Amino acid sequence: MVAPADLSAASQAANGPGLPVAVDAMGGDHAPAVVVEGARMAWERFGVPVLLVGRPEEIGDVGGIEVLSASEVIAMGAEPASSVRTLKDSSIVRGAEAVRDGRAKALLGAGNTGAAMAASLLRMGRIKGVARPAIAVPFPTFGSTPTTLLDCGANAQCQPEWLVQFAQLGSVYNRVRYGVQRPRVGVLSIGEEAGKGNDLIKEVCRLMESDSDWAHRCGAEFVGNVEGGDLMMGVADVIVCDGFTGNVVLKSIEGAMAVAQRQLRSALTSTAGSRVASEAIDPLVTPVFDTLDASKTGAAALLGTRGVCMIAHGSSSAETIANAIRTASEMADEGVVAQMRASFEASP
Amino acid sequence: MVAPADLSAASQAANGPGLPVAVDAMGGDHAPAVVVEGARMAWERFGVPVLLVGRPEEIGDVGGIEVLSASEVIAMGAEPASSVRTLKDSSIVRGAEAVRDGRAKALLGAGNTGAAMAASLLRMGRIKGVARPAIAVPFPTFGSTPTTLLDCGANAQCQPEWLVQFAQLGSVYNRVRYGVQRPRVGVLSIGEEAGKGNDLIKEVCRLMESDSDWAHRCGAEFVGNVEGGDLMMGVADVIVCDGFTGNVVLKSIEGAMAVAQRQLRSALTSTAGSRVASEAIDPLVTPVFDTLDASKTGAAALLGTRGVCMIAHGSSSAETIANAIRTASEMADEGVVAQMRASFEASP
Repeated sequence: MVAPADLSAASQAANGPGLPVAVDAMGGDHAPAVVVEGARMAWERFGVPVLLVGRPEEIGDVGGIEVLSASEVIAMGAEPASSVRTLKDSSIVRGAEAVRDGRAKALLGAGNTGAAMAASLLRMGRIKGVARPAIAVPFPTFGSTPTTLLDCGANAQCQPEWLVQFAQLGSVYNRVRYGVQRPRVGVLSIGEEAGKGNDLIKEVCRLMESDSDWAHRCGAEFVGNVEGGDLMMGVADVIVCDGFTGNVVLKSIEGAMAVAQRQLRSALTSTAGSRVASEAIDPLVTPVFDTLDASKTGAAALLGTRGVCMIAHGSSSAETIANAIRTASEMADEGVVAQMRASFEASP
Repeated sequence: MVAPADLSAASQAANGPGLPVAVDAMGGDHAPAVVVEGARMAWERFGVPVLLVGRPEEIGDVGGIEVLSASEVIAMGAEPASSVRTLKDSSIVRGAEAVRDGRAKALLGAGNTGAAMAASLLRMGRIKGVARPAIAVPFPTFGSTPTTLLDCGANAQCQPEWLVQFAQLGSVYNRVRYGVQRPRVGVLSIGEEAGKGNDLIKEVCRLMESDSDWAHRCGAEFVGNVEGGDLMMGVADVIVCDGFTGNVVLKSIEGAMAVAQRQLRSALTSTAGSRVASEAIDPLVTPVFDTLDASKTGAAALLGTRGVCMIAHGSSSAETIANAIRTASEMADEGVVAQMRASFEASP
């Protein structure tokens, strides 16, 4: 456990291994039932304690799981910033406060993504030196550790300097999470040659090449432009892009995979002969798609706030919620926030 | 065949059903052999005559296929615009000239995409009123006609007005190609609610909603924002985006599908039992991925030039080349360029 001297007492407490993960019980397509079930699985399977935040009467009987009462809920479609300001007793806001106050070591939300970001940003605060937090999603690759894509949607419109910071945040994350000692950082573009891209990306590449301070601060290596097709090929450990592009890419791949899986199932059950074979095959096919689904293997992490915040898909199953809780717990135990603070706050 | 009175004699001739499709024999990862084989297949299977353009000594014996000699080749990595200007006797430039001069009805290139665009733009010219041509890619959907995504890479940096024109070009294309009488046009964004997106997309939505002249000109219906996950779900017939986003999305999906197919094959051959089953399954699985691969089902079309230009993947097989030649021929026969001209050049 890393606990640099400059961390406040509250932050240190927030990183304590014995603390629970605060989980917004009211967020998600099938909340609170699926979230409660996921919390139970996290405790039973992984031994991670959970603090469920929400309306006790809706959460119901949860056995030994601790509940933090919050009377309001920020709906899926609600405007994030104003909702966080006005709904002060909402489950996601109370959850973020629990992390801030050292009552939980991390936050997980499966509801309104913007509200989870806003609550974390406003209640936990930003790491000093970070202009904007970003959403990081680990994409599975084969034969190597995941490739972290960020920003996957926190900032629809980006300044070039922010992407350089995303590279720094992503590199620390990748080293702490996956043990990559010298993360290779690529910039998502439309050709591998330098000079390819839109105005934003050209400027990002210029900044990243002209001043390597960011790379020194996080021990990264800049590998230049990468393309959409490289995302799952393991050619870079961290890939940066603006939040618009990242979100569109993430959802496009999810959608295409869902179509592929559906069509495969349909093809495999199209004839009597293939139906028989497909019974043998299905247990092999499903895990492949599950492994390829970034939303199932690891929830998205909001990087740049002074506390761990994870964001799960609204449609997450109890199992996915349980995995995300475990990941959030690990991130807190590994001291990822402290390492990011050290990277940004150290003298150049 | 539509042939409005305002078409020049050359353009009318260029749309002639009896004319060949000019094919850059020198472009592609395995050129000229695979391209020549694809040309032969196009003739034998579909009865589409081809004009192979390139170095006769490298093209070799092609039986009855017509060859147009061109001594130069624009390499895959070469800078497009300057190459087209200096390599006047290159295969892609001579191919574009063959369309301009009424010697061929369409052009197909599988080499340097930028060079194919530049050659078409400079030799065939732009449709009057079109600011920038765009690359359109039909994505397969299930239960409905393909969804055309554009721009997939012609313009890395876009003005909002251009995306409105892409909507118009894509709608005409979709009606002519797939018979969709009232194409539903969506704007690719990061949320379905109006007001979601980056600065470009917000302005595009504002333009498309505030003045419906573009929609009248192409008989389209604006359906607002769509997300990445909607691309293959059939929720819109035409989806517009800037060329940076479109190219990243296209390549991301291609890459993810390739990984999925590889992992599935590996899973299906992992045990003796599954190996047996996989022999029965493989003939069912491969067509699913082939159908889902936009680059196999239909080559990309450059829309906005005064002649049909199709662009195939550099790694295209002979079969893919043959399919692209057939598509190029059909597009010319269907008079897609004339219809686009009518849409843009008609009085408001």
